[in-house]
Amino acid sequence: MSADPAVERVTIVGDGQMGVVMAAMLAWRGTEACVWGPFPEPLAELARTRRTARLPGLELPAAVRVELDAARALAGATMVVNAIPTQFVRAAWRDAARHAPAGAPVISVTKGIEDSTLLRPTQILAQAVPCATGRPRPVAVLSGPTIAAELARRLPATMVSAAEDHALAERVQRTFSTPWLRVYTNGDVVGVEIAGAAKNVVALAAGMVDGLGMGSNAKSALLARGLAEIVRLGVAVGARPETFFGIAGVGDLATTCFSPEGRNRSCGEAIGRGETLEGYLERTDSVVEGVATSRALLALAARHGVDMPIVEAVESILFRGITPKDALRVLMGREAGAERIG
Amino acid sequence: MSADPAVERVTIVGDGQMGVVMAAMLAWRGTEACVWGPFPEPLAELARTRRTARLPGLELPAAVRVELDAARALAGATMVVNAIPTQFVRAAWRDAARHAPAGAPVISVTKGIEDSTLLRPTQILAQAVPCATGRPRPVAVLSGPTIAAELARRLPATMVSAAEDHALAERVQRTFSTPWLRVYTNGDVVGVEIAGAAKNVVALAAGMVDGLGMGSNAKSALLARGLAEIVRLGVAVGARPETFFGIAGVGDLATTCFSPEGRNRSCGEAIGRGETLEGYLERTDSVVEGVATSRALLALAARHGVDMPIVEAVESILFRGITPKDALRVLMGREAGAERIG
Repeated sequence: MSADPAVERVTIVGDGQMGVVMAAMLAWRGTEACVWGPFPEPLAELARTRRTARLPGLELPAAVRVELDAARALAGATMVVNAIPTQFVRAAWRDAARHAPAGAPVISVTKGIEDSTLLRPTQILAQAVPCATGRPRPVAVLSGPTIAAELARRLPATMVSAAEDHALAERVQRTFSTPWLRVYTNGDVVGVEIAGAAKNVVALAAGMVDGLGMGSNAKSALLARGLAEIVRLGVAVGARPETFFGIAGVGDLATTCFSPEGRNRSCGEAIGRGETLEGYLERTDSVVEGVATSRALLALAARHGVDMPIVEAVESILFRGITPKDALRVLMGREAGAERIG
Repeated sequence: MSADPAVERVTIVGDGQMGVVMAAMLAWRGTEACVWGPFPEPLAELARTRRTARLPGLELPAAVRVELDAARALAGATMVVNAIPTQFVRAAWRDAARHAPAGAPVISVTKGIEDSTLLRPTQILAQAVPCATGRPRPVAVLSGPTIAAELARRLPATMVSAAEDHALAERVQRTFSTPWLRVYTNGDVVGVEIAGAAKNVVALAAGMVDGLGMGSNAKSALLARGLAEIVRLGVAVGARPETFFGIAGVGDLATTCFSPEGRNRSCGEAIGRGETLEGYLERTDSVVEGVATSRALLALAARHGVDMPIVEAVESILFRGITPKDALRVLMGREAGAERIG
């Protein structure tokens, strides 16, 4: 764990709160970090002020470069982080991808399933950021319960670094570990990504439970039943069940369902209180990953013949005009039999 | 599920908030319910006022009998609920046990491990409430994320009914199901009881994280790592791992770690803020089950050669004068390697 922090040069693609806080954390430990984002205006603003409205209190360390030009940002990078929301990954990389050094691994910190293809973030990135050599782009995923505002305050946290290539998982672990961030390795890329995507959909439902004032007993039941259906899908697509019971699984799910800050939970709460999805999305400038993911996940579940009643309820509320109260009545009305997890 | 509610006559032993709310729920659905408790004064107060200070807003339905005499309370009962805290079960039943009708099953809603014997509640009850016939007392456990104040408001909730005898598990399911309480059956008595006991200890640690202001990322990591060590112990003592990922496992753990109301979390929070255990216990009249259970669980883990670093940290804070900050430093300082769940 006592790696030389100066070994890597990390370029972060995406200047949202996760991108910014990861750049700051790398700089704090002495690793060269550079930030680039696809939208020139907010990027220029970040370069000028060294601050972002979404992370009050964080000033970007002087060592972090903010590059307005993708070619300059990516030149010489030994490792690239993708912090672009799932549905926008291809668009963000369209012109930038050719500047990514061949062989530099791309690490995804994105949580979702692409609506149009049903692919996971590392699968999208392998296509969207090809290596000039024609060899497959090395990819990894870094995931866990990490509210950016807490990372910015250097509060203790944990993540999982997952890659098919164990040496890459360990390299990511070495690069991002700090005294307050413990990174575990895991070989189950599929499981870590399915867990990350699905927890946002369950958090939308958890928020609706909050908005309807149904209490912690109901929310915890939802969390447990939600975890059960996530595991069912995960196993069907080739994930290992243990992954869902770890930090990137139940850990991230718990934070996302219970922490007041979460975007997906907050969106669900507004809808539970009677606001429309359109109304909520209009008044917030955050991307609510769970919205598109609910549809993608349901399609993925159908393809694999997996029953996901909570995801189905969320999708029917968001896209089919069912009220949260009615959807919940259907959920609670299912005959309770023997408890079934796997 | 459309059982005749009039079939059973249920006597609840224990007049704390869980005992009172279960009696009220039975009465609401038309099942005969009677409450008895081992302490004459608060019991007489409950009989007179039909209210308890711990559940403001709940008035005991007229149909619930509050019996000051154990013989009268237990006469004719077809089912008995034990709602006495773990460490006091034997004392509470000492004189009452002989009045429990032979053959009437005892259903435990108690969560803990007996400090002096390392037994689970249903094991204690089988000894403490023997059948006059000499045959073993039928026992079952009813567990899940059930904050009593929410049950009293008829907010939706779920529980698991577990018994070795599946017919008994189903009978308990039928007896306690209401339109707002879904009861699932489960054959894993050991798993449900280990989960219920251990979650209180993890919740003490979660409260300490709150008291130290360490944030949701840390608390969720603790929840996930806590779940992993609970599963390790559970499997070592013969439980099924799936149970811990269900309602009585992760569901109850999430509520207990995150809901502000929880006694164990609140106690941990006070200690995290610097209060002593003695000071906290003196100013509260609730039993904090996790305190004695932390010691019992650690002894049980040692007996089975299972490593439980979070339980160990809690026990060292409560009984060995280690500060929460130092114990946490030890926990966070453990080398992060590959994630290990089972």
